[in-house]
Formats: sequence, structure tokens, C-alpha cells
Amino acid sequence: MTKKQIVLTGDRPTGPLHLGHYVGSLRSRVELQDSCLQFVMIADMQALTDYAKEPQRVRDSVLQVALDYLAVGIDPEKTVIFLQSLIPALSELTMYYLNLVTWNRLKHNPTVKQEIKQKGFGESVPAGFMTYPVSQAADITAFKANLVPVGEDQRPMIEQTNEIVRSFNRIYETDVLVEAEARIPKIARLPGIDGQAKMSKSLNNAIYLSDDLDQVSKKVKKMYTDPSHLRVEDPGKVEGNPVFDYLDAFDTNIEKVQELKDHYQRGGLGDSVVKKYLLEVLIEFLEPIQKRRTEFENDPAAVLEIVRKGTERANEVASQTLADVRRAMHLNYYE
Amino acid sequence: MTKKQIVLTGDRPTGPLHLGHYVGSLRSRVELQDSCLQFVMIADMQALTDYAKEPQRVRDSVLQVALDYLAVGIDPEKTVIFLQSLIPALSELTMYYLNLVTWNRLKHNPTVKQEIKQKGFGESVPAGFMTYPVSQAADITAFKANLVPVGEDQRPMIEQTNEIVRSFNRIYETDVLVEAEARIPKIARLPGIDGQAKMSKSLNNAIYLSDDLDQVSKKVKKMYTDPSHLRVEDPGKVEGNPVFDYLDAFDTNIEKVQELKDHYQRGGLGDSVVKKYLLEVLIEFLEPIQKRRTEFENDPAAVLEIVRKGTERANEVASQTLADVRRAMHLNYYE
Repeated sequence: MTKKQIVLTGDRPTGPLHLGHYVGSLRSRVELQDSCLQFVMIADMQALTDYAKEPQRVRDSVLQVALDYLAVGIDPEKTVIFLQSLIPALSELTMYYLNLVTWNRLKHNPTVKQEIKQKGFGESVPAGFMTYPVSQAADITAFKANLVPVGEDQRPMIEQTNEIVRSFNRIYETDVLVEAEARIPKIARLPGIDGQAKMSKSLNNAIYLSDDLDQVSKKVKKMYTDPSHLRVEDPGKVEGNPVFDYLDAFDTNIEKVQELKDHYQRGGLGDSVVKKYLLEVLIEFLEPIQKRRTEFENDPAAVLEIVRKGTERANEVASQTLADVRRAMHLNYYE
Repeated sequence: MTKKQIVLTGDRPTGPLHLGHYVGSLRSRVELQDSCLQFVMIADMQALTDYAKEPQRVRDSVLQVALDYLAVGIDPEKTVIFLQSLIPALSELTMYYLNLVTWNRLKHNPTVKQEIKQKGFGESVPAGFMTYPVSQAADITAFKANLVPVGEDQRPMIEQTNEIVRSFNRIYETDVLVEAEARIPKIARLPGIDGQAKMSKSLNNAIYLSDDLDQVSKKVKKMYTDPSHLRVEDPGKVEGNPVFDYLDAFDTNIEKVQELKDHYQRGGLGDSVVKKYLLEVLIEFLEPIQKRRTEFENDPAAVLEIVRKGTERANEVASQTLADVRRAMHLNYYE
């Protein structure tokens, strides 16, 4: 038997989760929880690296994200759902790791560089944002996670973590920290309904897991398709056509999707017909999720209790790692 | 009655403390402990921003620094002596404050810039070193300290702390954090025995509080004086002459020191005579300190217990501040 894999994953609570989150990560968590020891973190501290001035947004989103987790089938009996800011060891590990990474290295992290550009931070980027890859290394190593599901663009974060792991183990002559492997999902990213590469709140192009079916219907109807597909009888393009990307992501009937693609490419299949079918597929997908969500929404105290219990369990594991780390650093004054 | 002042001060444990530490800070702590609530921090985490690769040096220095504190008369009944790395709230506050400081601001901190130059870090400066002013802000604010004794060169650190305090209170609409005032000692810095401005281990020009009297005697004998004062009958310079700086710092007989200065400047007073007198002054100063040090050295468990108790008390205060901070940030999920 191979060693059990430990997974660390999570989300910044800055708003409700959408179909892009489902395809990119939530789906794989539901699968992984049966075979792995999985920790799912609601990364409120990381959200604040970016939204320090909107604490209420972060606070409100914590419950929304927890509801989304439970709604899609992340099972608190199998997965440890926890709140980042309630695990002091994560901050402490970050402090120790910051000494093992040069300022220069942080400056050249490709993911962070791109995000700074996107967010238009320029020189006024918060120090907490520049250093969040180190905080992420703390999150991953605190649970001795060896598997981290991330998008392709997040791969440099895992590299940064592993550099810290190797530095730490070398300098302090220990093997207490564990390297992690990135797990890139097959469908890494679902486009927005406007055809843009990324689904996001700020672009207003997302379908949320918590959107009611009327909203979903409206969003599917205004979905971007092939702009040169003007008449039903014209041949249409499937590549770069989000309607088909969504079918690929959500329809389990692969043959049916292939038939529709062929028909669309030949000509004779109207956008409205495909969209109507996509809406059926999405409704079938969303209905059980939203039914579960409503049940939990009616009992927010139970959701908070689930997170509290998960946080307690996460604290036990992270505190143990911190103790190991401090021992390796000769900081175990009272042992 | 005015509000009681709260003092936060401390040292990086990277070696034993010397006469420069005494003049620059230890002496004022012994005075302040009667009128203020004083927290003295053994800053092991901050030492690691610079000495991450020498953890054993930091560890060993912790006990040495604690011994120096007790030896000079810092009284654990009046002063809270504590270990920085055992106060998790300090790391957590640092994480929150890092989001309120721009990367650019850190880059231009004058104290850090100068230290980077001195230490020859260049581009490979550890991120933990660049961010230590933020960690210092956490140390100061965690205890709601309003008085921080520092050298003139450390004034920018207090400014950085106060900027964070103002940002935090403004953004989170609170008054939970308190601004601090720098207290610059009259004699801020004792020169090295070689006449260099700063006494330091790396320059090998320091007299340690724990040096035995034979070592002190040797160091005083080879002390730098006025290099143009060749013959006893020549007039000598008092400015830039460390022998007189030391007399100013340690001799309580101010008239006598003035007489010696006048005589030296007129000519007719040999270096060896002044040095002999300085040695007497230093021995009188050091003897009771070393007597107390020896007592504590014979019972290291008692010293560790003093630090443990202080750390416990510091934890209570810092945890309370962290709770206030989290409440202001709306992160009090379970209240």
C-alpha cells in the first residue's frame, strides 16, 4: 500500500463560488476526499492581502464559501474544512519561512507579478500580497500536504513552497517538512459567459453555484457564442464557444455533446437550441446542489459548527508541525 | 494623575550584552520599571531575520540575555521579561499589518536600508529582514506600548509603527491601537574601545557585562585615546576619546570627570592614569552586576522559569489585543 496522500486546498472568501470554481477545483475535492486526507481552507487571511479594506466582504463570504462547499458535496466527515485565520501556527510558520526567501525571489514570482499587473497595484502593492506565496507555503507544509490541486498558473506557488521546504530541511538538518506536488485538473478553467478566459465577479461574467434557476436561464441566454454563426444553416465554430465548453464540463453524455458539436460545425443547428439543451444540463447539475445549500442555509449555526470542528482538527495538526519545526530550529526552550 | 505609561523594549539575542547596551537601553529600563508598566522582549524571532542559519547561536543567547537583564537589575517583579517566539499573537498581528504597508514603503525604510548596506545583503536580503519593521509594529502595539526607548537611528521604526496604527484605526474605524513615542536616551551610543562609533561583536571592540575583570582590564589598557597625545605633558583631546566617553557614561562623580578632562586638555595627564581611574570606575560598576549574574548562572532553571512566567503574562496581554484587533476587522466569527 502506498502512503496516503494529504491534500491541501482552499479558496479566498471574497464572494460566492461559481461554476469555474466547481470545474477547476470543487469537483476534484469531492473525488479526492474518498481516497485522501483532505484539508480545505477558507483562506480569510489570504483574502485580506488583497481586500484589507473590505473586511465585512471577507467575513460575509466565509459563510457563503462554506455553504458552497457543503452544497457541492464536500463532506465534513471526510474533509477537514477550516478557517485560516484561526490557525495561529500558519502565521508563525510564515514568520520563520520569510527568513528563508529573498526579497528578490518574491519580486520575481511569476504568478504574483501577473496578479499585480491585473489588479493594477503597481508600486503600492501591499507587502502582505507580495509575501503571500510564503504564507501559502506555511498552509501547505503545516498539514504536510503532498498533493495540492491548482491551476496551471499557480504552479510557481508550489515551486516556491518546495524551495522553502528544501531550504528549511537543509539548514536545520531535518526532514520535518514535506515537498508537495501540483495536481493540475483536466479542465483547468471554464471561460466566462462572455467568452473571456476567466470567470470572475469583477467581469460580471460568472454563473454562481447559488444563482437561482431564473438567473441561470438569463445568463445562458445571453451567453457568447460564435459571432460569425449568423443564420441557423451556417456552419459554426465549437472552439472558443463557451456554450460547448460548458457542455464539455457538465454534460456526462459525451456522445450527445459530440453529436451537437458535429451538427453545429456542419450548420443547421441554432444557438438557441444548444443553449436550451445546456440550460437543461446545468439545471440537472445545479438542482441537487441548491437543494443541499438551502438545507444548510436554514441552519447557519450548524455550518459554523462544522467549520469550528474542522478548525479544531486542523489546529491539532498544524500545531504539531509547528512544534516539529521549532524543535528543528532549536527553539524548543521548554521541552 | 496621568495615564500610566507602557513601555516595550528588548534585544535580539545574538550574543551577550555589552556596556553599549547598558548605556543605550538597559540603564533606562532599570529606571523605567518603577514608574511604568514595562515589557522587555527577548526578540528571538527578530534575531532569526538575520541569523536564520545560526539557530543555536540564537538559542544560546536567549539565556545569556536573560542573565544580563537580571544582572543589571531588571526586576521580574516589576518588568515583564518574555520570549517573542512564544507569543503567537505577534505573528498573527504581523500578518494583518503586512496588508496595510506597501512594498514600496518597506523598501524605503531608512533604518533597514542602512542595515542592508552594513550587512552587505544586497538583493539577497531575506524577506523576513525587509518586513521586520512590521513585526516590530506588532510587538509594540500588542502591548499598547506608548513609550519605546530606542536609539536615534531607530526613530523611523517608531514612525512606521505609528503609520500602521493610524491606517488600522482609520480603515477599521476603531481606536484599539495606540501610537507610540520614541524615547531617545541622553547618551545614545557608547563608542567601541577602538574609537569606532558602534560597539559590536563583529568589530571585536566591546566590553561585555559578563567579561571577567581581567578581560575588562586588558580591554581598557588597549583602549583608543587621542593619537596625537604622545607625551604626558602634551595637551590631549577629550572629544572622540572613548576613555572620557566611558567616564561620562559610568562615573557618577561628574566634578571629578570634569577635573580630569581639564587636566588632560591642559597637558600633564597621562593616558595610563586616566585609564587606571576608568578601570576602577568600571570595576565598581560591574562588580555588583557580576555578583548577581553569578547567582543566577548557578540556577538556570530559575531563570527559565522567570522568562516562562513573563511570557505567560505577555501572552495574556497580547492575546487580548489580538482579540480586539480581530473584532475591529470583523473576524470575530465565534463571539
